Amino acid sequence: MSASHLPGKGQATRELILEAAYGMARSEGLEGLSIGTLAQGVGMSKSGVFAHFGSREDLQLAVLENAGGRFVDEVMAPALRLPRGLPRLRGIVERWFEWMRRHEGGCVLATASSEYDGRPGPLHDFVVKQQAEWREALKRAVGLAVESGELRADTDPGQAAFEIHALVLALHHDAGLFGHDDAMRRAKRGFERLLAGLRA
Amino acid sequence: MSASHLPGKGQATRELILEAAYGMARSEGLEGLSIGTLAQGVGMSKSGVFAHFGSREDLQLAVLENAGGRFVDEVMAPALRLPRGLPRLRGIVERWFEWMRRHEGGCVLATASSEYDGRPGPLHDFVVKQQAEWREALKRAVGLAVESGELRADTDPGQAAFEIHALVLALHHDAGLFGHDDAMRRAKRGFERLLAGLRA
Repeated sequence: MSASHLPGKGQATRELILEAAYGMARSEGLEGLSIGTLAQGVGMSKSGVFAHFGSREDLQLAVLENAGGRFVDEVMAPALRLPRGLPRLRGIVERWFEWMRRHEGGCVLATASSEYDGRPGPLHDFVVKQQAEWREALKRAVGLAVESGELRADTDPGQAAFEIHALVLALHHDAGLFGHDDAMRRAKRGFERLLAGLRA
Repeated sequence: MSASHLPGKGQATRELILEAAYGMARSEGLEGLSIGTLAQGVGMSKSGVFAHFGSREDLQLAVLENAGGRFVDEVMAPALRLPRGLPRLRGIVERWFEWMRRHEGGCVLATASSEYDGRPGPLHDFVVKQQAEWREALKRAVGLAVESGELRADTDPGQAAFEIHALVLALHHDAGLFGHDDAMRRAKRGFERLLAGLRA
């Protein structure tokens, strides 16, 4: 993660590599990233790629950070502009479900969780940090819906966030194996049932 | 998946290879299986391994089948001996949660779902078949608890099975990233909340 000091062209090349690596990681996972195949794909030498990313791990971290940025841009940021309470909570969950549908063929972030959960190192730490951040955002959104009086005062926001995230994971799992229409319908029903149980 | 006609020693060698491959797949995934590394690990030549498994894909299928057999032996079979209704449903879910705890460092079956969801072929088809079978078993257990009058007559068994499986996935996800005690506590609370909502 070095080339940020490079002007214009260097930055553009870095982004080109990153885009190609993101595409490769979507289907192969971050552990499936091969500098050789990547270099070939963008028409560069391996050392050309290494000039922008010092190591394979640096590149993997950059791809993960890049995927996280997309997730924040598409899911979290637009939802955080909605009014506090149920509208914002629904906004996050609907967009998160949509994200999963768009990435049913391969979500770098979802795959990274299972690639690095049992594999200590910088990538593991980065995945934990990302996932904790988004869980916290979900928990906060639940908490605000309690404060607004829309959800019951005895709601446990951490528990609710866990159960909502469970539906996101199940949507991803079922969409990939059994087809996304059924999975999306079930995830949405699960979320409505969960909300109904928490309504003040 | 050929060597079943081999007598005694051949069968034992096949099982030795399979055991080693299962251990490797637990940490590296089925896509991380390397015949070279595996052969080295069991002190054989690569062609020795190929004598028992015709191809890398045959070996991957055998490992997946083997992992599925363990899951059935440890989770499904003992639960199916419990009385129909809530005892059996709880029996499946408790054992499934325990399975996830024991395999938090790497579950061949969970990893296979994310490895093959977007990758057509025999491994994808086998994963779909396994997952559909176990979802069906869960759905049947919910249905029997409806028949016994313990769960409400308007319960949708497929929806309930989806939501229960969501908790299994969330337990696996959180156990690997955030620690298993919290994850187990949340998964159990989620299951009790779900049951409470479905009680007749």
